[in-house]
Amino acid sequence: MRKLVIASRNKGKISELKELLKEYNFEILSLDDYPEIPEIKETGKSFKENALIKARIAAQETGCLALADDSGLEVDALGGAPGIYSSRFAGPNKDDEANNKKLLELLEGVPFDKRTARFRCVVAAVDPQGIEITTEGVCEGKIGFEPKGSFGFGYDPIFIVDGYGLTMAELKPEIKNRISHRAKAFKKIAAVLKGLLD
Amino acid sequence: MRKLVIASRNKGKISELKELLKEYNFEILSLDDYPEIPEIKETGKSFKENALIKARIAAQETGCLALADDSGLEVDALGGAPGIYSSRFAGPNKDDEANNKKLLELLEGVPFDKRTARFRCVVAAVDPQGIEITTEGVCEGKIGFEPKGSFGFGYDPIFIVDGYGLTMAELKPEIKNRISHRAKAFKKIAAVLKGLLD
Repeated sequence: MRKLVIASRNKGKISELKELLKEYNFEILSLDDYPEIPEIKETGKSFKENALIKARIAAQETGCLALADDSGLEVDALGGAPGIYSSRFAGPNKDDEANNKKLLELLEGVPFDKRTARFRCVVAAVDPQGIEITTEGVCEGKIGFEPKGSFGFGYDPIFIVDGYGLTMAELKPEIKNRISHRAKAFKKIAAVLKGLLD
Repeated sequence: MRKLVIASRNKGKISELKELLKEYNFEILSLDDYPEIPEIKETGKSFKENALIKARIAAQETGCLALADDSGLEVDALGGAPGIYSSRFAGPNKDDEANNKKLLELLEGVPFDKRTARFRCVVAAVDPQGIEITTEGVCEGKIGFEPKGSFGFGYDPIFIVDGYGLTMAELKPEIKNRISHRAKAFKKIAAVLKGLLD
């Protein structure tokens, strides 16, 4: 069975990916299976660069096909911020609540129709034999005026999904897992990876 | 049938690719079918960047899956030159003969075991729906002391292929088409593209 290393130590992400890739004939590993590999720094200038940096290092260090993702929120009224800094928007040791608070404060006085935003996810797959693949998924919406809902994480409570009128945190996981930026990007890469298995 | 646009107007390259992709269910077009698209400049700093630039523009302009390649010769004793400048090494209006002559002159006095080199090819496929794929193929060899053979083109007459003891221009096309950098890169991308067809 072909090995696939997920370039992450995040247990939630690893189990989500195992679920998504279960129909394919991969033996799925993660960086937890390679404790000697140090933490990979996201030094890129875009989601794509960050995802490729992580997947390239994991592929090089393990000799296996490796998969990595990077994602975040782009708010048009803030010129695309927080973007690649989404998880550390309010500072390196802050949490989701601090990030959401900072974003709502920056958007004070901005009317609803100008609060357009999107979640973007890029997934990269790197095969040490000289193959690189990136796929992108986008979920469009608007930033609300207060947090709502208790599912999900990150900016989900203040991100109102286009066509649903609910925040991402109010959507049931089975709906989120179908329409999210991450789901779209991973579905595309799974289709492409299938070709590599034959 | 799914459309695939080859980001080239080079008739030889287009027919070679049609041959390679004939087992897949693509309707193959090229930039000859889109005369309104201007010539795409190769402004990248690597084969990969150049191939991606061409495939991205073709995908954007046509709305179709697009394929492009870039390739060249890397000579170790020259720090990787001519690299992305392979086709214009001796100047913008020079030909293969002038390029080969310049390379042999630059390597004067360099002994055979220090004349290691490789042909490298990167192929990029870009789907306007947010998928980018690159594959790489490499063919290792050494630069000879004089041109030999009459098949092929470019640096083929002075590139002695590892394991064959013959220049690329002395190898029969059916052998070259199996072991060349270009063949290896295209075989890999064909495998990946198969996944996109289902």
